[in-house]
Amino acid sequence: MTNIYAVILAGGKGTRFWPLSTSKRPKQVLAIVGGKTLLSSSVDRLKGFVPPERTIIITSAEFIESTQKAVPSLPRKNIIGEPFGRDTAAACALAMTIVKARDPNGIVCILTADHVIGDLDVFTATLREGCKIAEGSGNIVTIGINPSFPSTGFGYIKAGEKFKSASGVLFQKADKFVEKPDAATARRYLQSGDYYWNSGMFIWSIDTFQQALKKLQPKLQKMSDKLLPHVDTPVFGSYLEKEYSKIPKISVDYAIMEKMRSIVVAKGTFRWSDLGSWPALEEHFEPDSNKNTFIGYCEQIDSSANVVVSNERLTAMIGVNDLVVVQAPEVTLICSKNKAQDVKKMVELLTAKNIYSHLL
Amino acid sequence: MTNIYAVILAGGKGTRFWPLSTSKRPKQVLAIVGGKTLLSSSVDRLKGFVPPERTIIITSAEFIESTQKAVPSLPRKNIIGEPFGRDTAAACALAMTIVKARDPNGIVCILTADHVIGDLDVFTATLREGCKIAEGSGNIVTIGINPSFPSTGFGYIKAGEKFKSASGVLFQKADKFVEKPDAATARRYLQSGDYYWNSGMFIWSIDTFQQALKKLQPKLQKMSDKLLPHVDTPVFGSYLEKEYSKIPKISVDYAIMEKMRSIVVAKGTFRWSDLGSWPALEEHFEPDSNKNTFIGYCEQIDSSANVVVSNERLTAMIGVNDLVVVQAPEVTLICSKNKAQDVKKMVELLTAKNIYSHLL
Repeated sequence: MTNIYAVILAGGKGTRFWPLSTSKRPKQVLAIVGGKTLLSSSVDRLKGFVPPERTIIITSAEFIESTQKAVPSLPRKNIIGEPFGRDTAAACALAMTIVKARDPNGIVCILTADHVIGDLDVFTATLREGCKIAEGSGNIVTIGINPSFPSTGFGYIKAGEKFKSASGVLFQKADKFVEKPDAATARRYLQSGDYYWNSGMFIWSIDTFQQALKKLQPKLQKMSDKLLPHVDTPVFGSYLEKEYSKIPKISVDYAIMEKMRSIVVAKGTFRWSDLGSWPALEEHFEPDSNKNTFIGYCEQIDSSANVVVSNERLTAMIGVNDLVVVQAPEVTLICSKNKAQDVKKMVELLTAKNIYSHLL
Repeated sequence: MTNIYAVILAGGKGTRFWPLSTSKRPKQVLAIVGGKTLLSSSVDRLKGFVPPERTIIITSAEFIESTQKAVPSLPRKNIIGEPFGRDTAAACALAMTIVKARDPNGIVCILTADHVIGDLDVFTATLREGCKIAEGSGNIVTIGINPSFPSTGFGYIKAGEKFKSASGVLFQKADKFVEKPDAATARRYLQSGDYYWNSGMFIWSIDTFQQALKKLQPKLQKMSDKLLPHVDTPVFGSYLEKEYSKIPKISVDYAIMEKMRSIVVAKGTFRWSDLGSWPALEEHFEPDSNKNTFIGYCEQIDSSANVVVSNERLTAMIGVNDLVVVQAPEVTLICSKNKAQDVKKMVELLTAKNIYSHLL
């Protein structure tokens, strides 16, 4: 029987979750929702489907320790640290090299660490059926999320011809991958009913992936070939550093997905949410009677529709509305809810000043 | 020559300056403006006029230690702790008893700890001339502040017949003391030109004060008589506790000023400001180009007209306006600027919950 592997891409820094997320404490190891870190949730939700021995996390070399701490069930050799970020195509190529060295016939689910997912039985059924398709057909399978609003923050997949798996998961031929649209285009996508959000989750066999890589990204294929004999040996790290410096920085969507024909979309009908910025927390917590989302110690008078994360100190609010407030050990962020995307700008502003580097 | 004494009333808790001001750390020992505590500023501004040996602070018994720390120049015996608050009439009677025991012919300036005062030469000249009037005439002298806006937060003094001291300080007969007016009345007062703000600063001789007390507040006079022989002895504290429990809680304005005829107002033309609530800080600091008053570590993007006190952590603001933000060791207050008077309500709300008592 073919073994299924899970690769969790957890390389991002999560600047949009500053000040709780910093270079030393990335978003994935924060326990914001449900008392679990995003990383341990990502591993735990695979229970009964992929065991920790076949789950691999690709993260930044500097986060290896915090990752190990967040997911103690994972064997140390399954946490792979990238010496520097080279975007998702390189991360996938690296992960596939590791799996190939251990099990050349594996089927691999590429998953992400920064989503909140519910309805876990539906989730794993979707992956399970996707693995069958990916194994039998030589197709790449991607999970599409039914859009719930005209988001300009996701890439989209245009879906075509339909077919159903034996257990009822809907699959469609992927006609096109498109990048983040403008608002008008996003509205059109939503109305048409033909578009899914690109969840960043993919399923492929090692063979399918490597053939695509060979054709579309020969430099990445070359890196993979060079690294293959050194996987799980003491010299792997130094080879990785050398080879990683030579390859292009490119996303898997751009490097492969947008250029492939044989891609199938599985319709993800489980609850799914991209924890993309602080206001997204509103979807995951019960608000108080004034529509405040309070996590931690918060008290208010005449204040409504605020999102507050305050686990280690008290946030006392009087007569304020529509704010995001995040308490980190040495920083308080106070941000208008509709400016949450500018948290990145604040990190840039502080980076430019020498005195704040320990807070970033 | 008659000696001049200064009595600084510093018994208030300053709830409006929560969360920096707490029951353990009252407003007077906070160093908010000019890097000095309000108390040490109150003592320092008497330099060259009244020495520390003749300056007495009346405060709450629980604040004796923090007061001594804030004003190390003051002899320990000049810091008098009230066992419990009995408002300003009792505090004055207590202070006058101390002075009388030490120097029965003294002239006493009753001053406050919660004002910010500039133009110190004008300030001390006003007190000096006031002392002469108080000594020679048997009048009580009070310092009136020329109102700069129709405040509903101060009591007012209606001033009548004018005369000038040799050095040019304007004195007027006090026709009436009135309590905090409503907005329309305050506007009328301002327009009339006959009203001063009641600064809470008074000058009187021991004899004048005690005669007034005898006539108007016999219970306070009785307390004073009982305490007098024990001043500066080890048993004073226990006598004070006993006598203080018997006397009425009443303000000096209500107990004496509103009922006396021979009161003279000195026109205070020095800079004076009641640090009554957080937004008042705007008067004492240079704003940035976005009209933000930032004290401590503050960074902002697209934010204006905020008042922020953040000395021990970074406050990072994005797209927010007209907020008061105050960082205390375990609390962050975020308050709409026009709701600053509701800080008291927040303290009440937190008092009602058991878990926050250490923050109050």
